[in-house]
Amino acid sequence: MAKQNIYDNEVFFEGYKKIRDKEVNANTVFEIPVLFSMLPDLKGKKILDLGCGFGEHCLEYVRMGAESVVGIDISQKMLKIAREENSDPKITYLNMPMEDISDIEGSFDVVLSSLAFHYIDDFEGVVKKVYEKLNSNGVFIFSQEHPLNTCHSNGERWTRDENGEKIHVNLKNYCVEKEVESEWFVDNVKKYHRMFSTIINTLVDSGFVIKKIVEPFPDNDILSKYPEFSDNLHKPDFLIIKAQKA
Amino acid sequence: MAKQNIYDNEVFFEGYKKIRDKEVNANTVFEIPVLFSMLPDLKGKKILDLGCGFGEHCLEYVRMGAESVVGIDISQKMLKIAREENSDPKITYLNMPMEDISDIEGSFDVVLSSLAFHYIDDFEGVVKKVYEKLNSNGVFIFSQEHPLNTCHSNGERWTRDENGEKIHVNLKNYCVEKEVESEWFVDNVKKYHRMFSTIINTLVDSGFVIKKIVEPFPDNDILSKYPEFSDNLHKPDFLIIKAQKA
Repeated sequence: MAKQNIYDNEVFFEGYKKIRDKEVNANTVFEIPVLFSMLPDLKGKKILDLGCGFGEHCLEYVRMGAESVVGIDISQKMLKIAREENSDPKITYLNMPMEDISDIEGSFDVVLSSLAFHYIDDFEGVVKKVYEKLNSNGVFIFSQEHPLNTCHSNGERWTRDENGEKIHVNLKNYCVEKEVESEWFVDNVKKYHRMFSTIINTLVDSGFVIKKIVEPFPDNDILSKYPEFSDNLHKPDFLIIKAQKA
Repeated sequence: MAKQNIYDNEVFFEGYKKIRDKEVNANTVFEIPVLFSMLPDLKGKKILDLGCGFGEHCLEYVRMGAESVVGIDISQKMLKIAREENSDPKITYLNMPMEDISDIEGSFDVVLSSLAFHYIDDFEGVVKKVYEKLNSNGVFIFSQEHPLNTCHSNGERWTRDENGEKIHVNLKNYCVEKEVESEWFVDNVKKYHRMFSTIINTLVDSGFVIKKIVEPFPDNDILSKYPEFSDNLHKPDFLIIKAQKA
């Protein structure tokens, strides 16, 4: 039997290309690779994932050798899909806000969170709870929207030329920490803007040692593959921080 | 003899007021108070001041109880004034670039630097040398221009309304680390732009523990006294970092 070359089927290819194209976004190009590059060896480790969503990361942590993974999310709908599509005997999905993690039994070696902390009002409270749930020398890695993003609502972010090309970010009120209403699929998504220094000092004052900070931007390799991301030279979309319990 | 009330002398007052007015600038309102607020107890400590300029800070460190202060500066003219106006038996002024501090004998408890590091090309090299010159648990505190400043040359920084009032910062190429030619009294002052994360990671990778970061901005108290500083709500002028030798 001849091998099926499905990729050359025009209809399949167009459909495949669409989902592949969809998969190229700021998360897959910048945030996810950086977050995973900052992980310690997960073999035999107990992991807590804050705001786990569909659970893809939880399953990946199991594949990387984690002993157990607890994924929590405030959204029941997200967890329904997580349980259907990314379940594993080593994963426990819990429906709870991350402000309630003190209620989880046991302690963890690694606490992770991908793009959830900019939705948290009480950042200091959650950081202190993460510190309490970590074993000593435990690692805390989280990504969030960059403070140069969270200080604006979407509409006013860029100055564009007559062709609609972005010229520069309209940076306003970076020093005004606040709740920002933003638009992302739906109106009125609430985000919380905190300055860079506030984020770092909150971690340090809670007992964490800062190990690494990444503000991902497009290098030449990314720019040659995805020139549409050149805007990210003006400002990073994400901030990823690795800290350790002292 | 009646006490002289020189402040009520009209000519003196006007002259005095002028120098007092001059003293209200971003340095005196933001940078100097924050830098001094972050100092540890200097009693009996050996201090090194990188880029000491006229030496005012060196003399202040002696007044605060420092056992000895070494102030270095690359500028002979600056040090001439430092020796004339701010000398003290406990202060040694040395004419050298901060890249050469390994040549200084002895070690230090506290290394300080006010608004000099954005002029340094080899930041990593200097940070490593500072680490070597510090005693264990020694403290390193430095201020520099904020990365949201150093990424621009002066001319293109702001968008203004028809009255010349600043509306927002034109943030461009924050992620492009580079030498920037700027204008400050004279043309072509060279500054070096580094991202926030580069500054922090360089310190961490050299063995320092981050203790505190301040991006000074005008609080209500400052705004009521000096409303002209409201622009600093859009972006801070300075970044001040306190780190400790682990």
